[in-house]
Amino acid sequence: MNKISFYSKVCSCLLFILIFQCYTAQEHPSLILTTKGVAEIRANLGRIPLFDETLASTKSQIDAEILNGIEVPIPKDYSGGYTHERHKKNFLMMQKAGLLYQILNEEKYAKYVKEMLFQYEKMYPTLPLHPQTRSYARGKFFWQALNDSNWLVYTAQAYDCIYNYLTVSERKTLESNLFRPLADFISLENPKFYNRIHNHSTWGNVAVGMIGLVMNDKKLVERALYGMKKDGIKEGEKDNDGGLLKKPGQKAGFFANVDEPFSPDGYFTEGPYYQRYAMYPYMVFAEALQNTRPDLKVFEYKNGVLLKSLITLLNLTDTEGKFFPLNDGQKGMSYYSRELVFSVDAAYLFGEKNTGLLSIAEKQSEVTLDNAGFAVAKAIQEGKATSFIKKSVAYSDGIKGDQGGVGILRSKGSTEEITLVMKYAAQGGSHGHYDKLSFSLYEGGNEILQDYGLARFVNIQQKGGGNYLKENKTWAKQTIAHNTIVQNESSNFEADYETGDQFHSDKYLFDANNPNLQIVSAKESNAFPGTEMHRVLALIKEDDFENPFLLDIIKIKSKTSNQYDLPYYYFGQIMSANFKYETPNILSPLGTKNGYEHLWKIGEGSQPEGNAKVSWFNNDRFISLTSAVSKDDQLIFTKIGANDPDFNLRNDPGFMIRKTNAKDTYFVTALEIHGHYNPVTEIGNNTFSNIKKLDIVYQDDQYIGIKIMTVGGDLSIFLFSFQDADKNSTHNVSIDGKIYSWNGAFTLIK
Amino acid sequence: MNKISFYSKVCSCLLFILIFQCYTAQEHPSLILTTKGVAEIRANLGRIPLFDETLASTKSQIDAEILNGIEVPIPKDYSGGYTHERHKKNFLMMQKAGLLYQILNEEKYAKYVKEMLFQYEKMYPTLPLHPQTRSYARGKFFWQALNDSNWLVYTAQAYDCIYNYLTVSERKTLESNLFRPLADFISLENPKFYNRIHNHSTWGNVAVGMIGLVMNDKKLVERALYGMKKDGIKEGEKDNDGGLLKKPGQKAGFFANVDEPFSPDGYFTEGPYYQRYAMYPYMVFAEALQNTRPDLKVFEYKNGVLLKSLITLLNLTDTEGKFFPLNDGQKGMSYYSRELVFSVDAAYLFGEKNTGLLSIAEKQSEVTLDNAGFAVAKAIQEGKATSFIKKSVAYSDGIKGDQGGVGILRSKGSTEEITLVMKYAAQGGSHGHYDKLSFSLYEGGNEILQDYGLARFVNIQQKGGGNYLKENKTWAKQTIAHNTIVQNESSNFEADYETGDQFHSDKYLFDANNPNLQIVSAKESNAFPGTEMHRVLALIKEDDFENPFLLDIIKIKSKTSNQYDLPYYYFGQIMSANFKYETPNILSPLGTKNGYEHLWKIGEGSQPEGNAKVSWFNNDRFISLTSAVSKDDQLIFTKIGANDPDFNLRNDPGFMIRKTNAKDTYFVTALEIHGHYNPVTEIGNNTFSNIKKLDIVYQDDQYIGIKIMTVGGDLSIFLFSFQDADKNSTHNVSIDGKIYSWNGAFTLIK
Repeated sequence: MNKISFYSKVCSCLLFILIFQCYTAQEHPSLILTTKGVAEIRANLGRIPLFDETLASTKSQIDAEILNGIEVPIPKDYSGGYTHERHKKNFLMMQKAGLLYQILNEEKYAKYVKEMLFQYEKMYPTLPLHPQTRSYARGKFFWQALNDSNWLVYTAQAYDCIYNYLTVSERKTLESNLFRPLADFISLENPKFYNRIHNHSTWGNVAVGMIGLVMNDKKLVERALYGMKKDGIKEGEKDNDGGLLKKPGQKAGFFANVDEPFSPDGYFTEGPYYQRYAMYPYMVFAEALQNTRPDLKVFEYKNGVLLKSLITLLNLTDTEGKFFPLNDGQKGMSYYSRELVFSVDAAYLFGEKNTGLLSIAEKQSEVTLDNAGFAVAKAIQEGKATSFIKKSVAYSDGIKGDQGGVGILRSKGSTEEITLVMKYAAQGGSHGHYDKLSFSLYEGGNEILQDYGLARFVNIQQKGGGNYLKENKTWAKQTIAHNTIVQNESSNFEADYETGDQFHSDKYLFDANNPNLQIVSAKESNAFPGTEMHRVLALIKEDDFENPFLLDIIKIKSKTSNQYDLPYYYFGQIMSANFKYETPNILSPLGTKNGYEHLWKIGEGSQPEGNAKVSWFNNDRFISLTSAVSKDDQLIFTKIGANDPDFNLRNDPGFMIRKTNAKDTYFVTALEIHGHYNPVTEIGNNTFSNIKKLDIVYQDDQYIGIKIMTVGGDLSIFLFSFQDADKNSTHNVSIDGKIYSWNGAFTLIK
Repeated sequence: MNKISFYSKVCSCLLFILIFQCYTAQEHPSLILTTKGVAEIRANLGRIPLFDETLASTKSQIDAEILNGIEVPIPKDYSGGYTHERHKKNFLMMQKAGLLYQILNEEKYAKYVKEMLFQYEKMYPTLPLHPQTRSYARGKFFWQALNDSNWLVYTAQAYDCIYNYLTVSERKTLESNLFRPLADFISLENPKFYNRIHNHSTWGNVAVGMIGLVMNDKKLVERALYGMKKDGIKEGEKDNDGGLLKKPGQKAGFFANVDEPFSPDGYFTEGPYYQRYAMYPYMVFAEALQNTRPDLKVFEYKNGVLLKSLITLLNLTDTEGKFFPLNDGQKGMSYYSRELVFSVDAAYLFGEKNTGLLSIAEKQSEVTLDNAGFAVAKAIQEGKATSFIKKSVAYSDGIKGDQGGVGILRSKGSTEEITLVMKYAAQGGSHGHYDKLSFSLYEGGNEILQDYGLARFVNIQQKGGGNYLKENKTWAKQTIAHNTIVQNESSNFEADYETGDQFHSDKYLFDANNPNLQIVSAKESNAFPGTEMHRVLALIKEDDFENPFLLDIIKIKSKTSNQYDLPYYYFGQIMSANFKYETPNILSPLGTKNGYEHLWKIGEGSQPEGNAKVSWFNNDRFISLTSAVSKDDQLIFTKIGANDPDFNLRNDPGFMIRKTNAKDTYFVTALEIHGHYNPVTEIGNNTFSNIKKLDIVYQDDQYIGIKIMTVGGDLSIFLFSFQDADKNSTHNVSIDGKIYSWNGAFTLIK
């Protein structure tokens, strides 16, 4: 044996020992803090400002909790109620106290966790199912097994931190009476909750996995990673949204839950609000696995989709960091949430040390009290932070990235970025909305054309216990609640989940190469059978416009004659309309079903010639909508709130263009954000639309030509090919005897 | 003649010369800048930051204007339109350019003013009345003589600054062809505009006075100070609001306009929005008079009411400096307006050097480029600024202070000040609202219970040329548009101005000595003949309430049976109600006239036992209203916006308590601002009302006793005497066999 060979063998051997150690070592802590990490943190206390600040505020919070005393009430309430909020607070406090024990090495924190754990241990064995019965998978501490899983994910970390503080017998008591039974309850006793592809299941998997790692229980870890082989779920069994609980051959467990909801681009099919919610279990378990089972290379799984998804999620925010409320999403949720604080830190440490993440962490102005948070705070102190640049981008949806997606256009405005978000994705699971080809528009953090979001007041007990309100189904999910086409007052797929889940829209093109002419376009052929819809949304920046303006073109081709409605939901007050309209003396709902029953019709008119123009005023800004309409189009003003016996809906206004008895048709609309009014100087500037005329000057099955004339008399023609998105194709059309030629699917000729 | 006598004579003589000089000296500038002031400013350039910053930004603004070139278009538009806004900009720019010429001593600024003046001079002689005919007193440059007066007030200052730059012959040309004809036009040719007690007249008087001072034209100055002896206004002649143009024996001119609208406390009867507007001419002319006619002692006039009124006006703002929108007032107007920048500076220099004003000037972050602004900036640099403390205060209305008034209660809340504004004033002139005993409530700068303000979009041309909308009369002025009692769906004085103008409410008591129990109370006997209303509003601070809560008691005594409505206008969305209510499938207006035609009735219910409680949610805050109602009371949810064919009204919600067939009755309501919801953590705290029960436990003609029981079981009893507000009186009532005794009109017994 030569030397090289000898060393090679020694190395292999060491490597084996190392790997073996990693797998079996029972160092504690090892989930998000490691012994090495703790040593480094302790050695640097007082030197890393952001870490020290978070530590100080956490310490003061936990010290106050310790003073307040431990409360472990008998479970009783829905979310928003006392027992729910107390148990929720308990697991959050335990986790933090555990970290403090490790970092500050003060016994009182370990003692606090230990005492609380033993109160839970005392209660658990005789605890029945939670008395509130609304959930399909009731928990014990909480009304949903989901929240019990939250509890275990956090508590596992607390247990990890005080593991070595406890005696062997104490650990045995806790594990036998509390942790293992709870892990089994979540999984074995709740297969419909645990063994699915769903954000709920991810929480379940991770709860079982995290406690499994601390307890060094390989069975639990296996069950977490790969699900349960036997779950008793019958073929064809559906959940209460009408979706299959399990598709044939469907895998389960953590890895399956990484596989399924994420596209290769890291887009989470349920949408950003739920991605944010899911992010924490994904990242915390990945981090724990990376620390304890590096052999699994979890962060490399599916081309590193977990780390990628965090970047994607950050891009799915407005300029203030608030998530676009695609599908069910409560407005206001943002990257300031604790899940994102955790994930941003983790993605920095375990990813490629993306310094853009550091600037997000700076804005969050806190870090996690663990290895990752320390690394972030240290890098910030070292001045490594750079801006996190959000670009115009298209994200694919679907496991393989072939199920449509979401396109975001970002264009610099005079004061704020104008942001457009178009959705042409798959159904998005049970939280999906029937909103094919819908979009929303922002100026900075202000919604100009809004997506309604969800009909729910999360954790506000007065409103249905903080749960989904029935108006979520009757209004928020319906197509009419979105800025997109509704055919015959129905919803996409007749709002049938199982049908909708089989289809997706298709991206036609996404091109943001020219910052002055950014375009996203997609097609939808299944939402209204027999009808093809093709939408083009462009942000166009021209010198004589204060801001990039939106050009919205929808081409509809149908086998039948239909009524098409195109609503735009805005905020603010109508300033002017260039057509006559009547406001009724008595308000009636616009329709009787599919969400129409929730709209008051507050005005109706028509424009006998040319363009309909409506301007409104919000946040001291003017917004003008100009649409090329025909004299037969009905122009309808609406307000949300009809048939709303509990005042569950926001009473936001809308403007709708309705075409009746139409087969093949176009909707062509421009929208400008302009002007400003200062209530102190009482001076308004640029308060009028800059578009004098918007005309369809060419249309056939292949092309459309739109002429835009400004008030100043400038002309531009937008030309678009509906059938060939190839960048290298050449197109020609003849308009008024003049030949226009261009390369690629679109052009804007001045 | 002894020495003393000799010196005495010399002194007298010198004094005479001095006075004479002051009166006749033609030093320029002398209005808001003096030669001495200019010298001091020039000597300190670059040393006084706030002054230098204002100077730099003004310079850059005027330099840009000079580059842009002069535009003096033929008058054509209403406010908001091009010619209006251009002429308005012109006088503002000329005034600033004049100041820059003096301070920087650069000829280009004088040249700019001169050239613009000569363009006006060229246009004026042949200029007809403004083509827009809506005003009762049309101008020439603008649609109202009022705006022409604005023009002259500012332009006089510009002329003063470049006076010495012009040749004698140039001055003569300007004075003969432009200034004197314009001054005569405003006054002699528009007596109904000029010779009244009205904020319009003040502008007219000051315009004539300012140009008179510069031209050293004593006739014009006399006309400004004391009005015109002959005005041809017929006795009994009324304006379009139905008010007498001139009461018999009424004086006119500047001093009369100081006498009349201000109470001795400095409250301006039209309300703060118009006081702000009027403040500029009052202060600028006072300053100019003080500099040129110190013999008039203008700042001492009527016990120094001008300076006092500025302090009063600053107190009529919320914590963000926004004026309470009493009477016609556009929301958002604040002490950041240019009128207040000017007035704050002037009040500092010409008043008692109130250092609190300096902190307001710091917030304004600009000063005027004149003697006063320099003094303020210098004092700030010297570190003299102190906080401007706004206290709870009652201001009297009426020339003699005997016509009711306005009471403001300010109480420290958990995060923000809770501010209550009660109005029990006189009619308030043509901009007055029929809102006797109304109030509004703020938390910091947020309106909790709102005063609607006016129905107008000032200077936004799309909305009726920026002028008053018809809904101002049909809605905003009506009693139902306010948080106060409406009898039989009518308005106070049947909304008849002439009647309303004869009466006022009466303060019953105002007591803010105890910060934990602040009270304002007033009575009204004329608004609904035969009915006496007595309202008590208390801000009560108790330990187990997050914020001071409002207790609102209204005692009504009538000769007849009536319907009484008490609306509360709020912002946000209903979270819960403790009574059953129906929401109609079809919305109808609540009534047919007096503003009721503008309210949609969106829900109605009743509470068969005890208290009606409604909670709503706004700005992440919860607000709960608890009212002691009877089973016959109708509880009505409303929304503003019916019969609004041009969408001129904001669609704000209201909650109304209606008592029918009532003669003598009480409304007793508590309102709590509590809790917080964080959309990022999704945690809501203190989201429920803390009041379990609100009961009237004692009532007779003299006393009322209200028992308040909290959720925690704490009891307190509020006792109030309606007939004896004397602080030294002793009262006794027996409740449930127990005798309660107290001193003064009210007490809160725990």
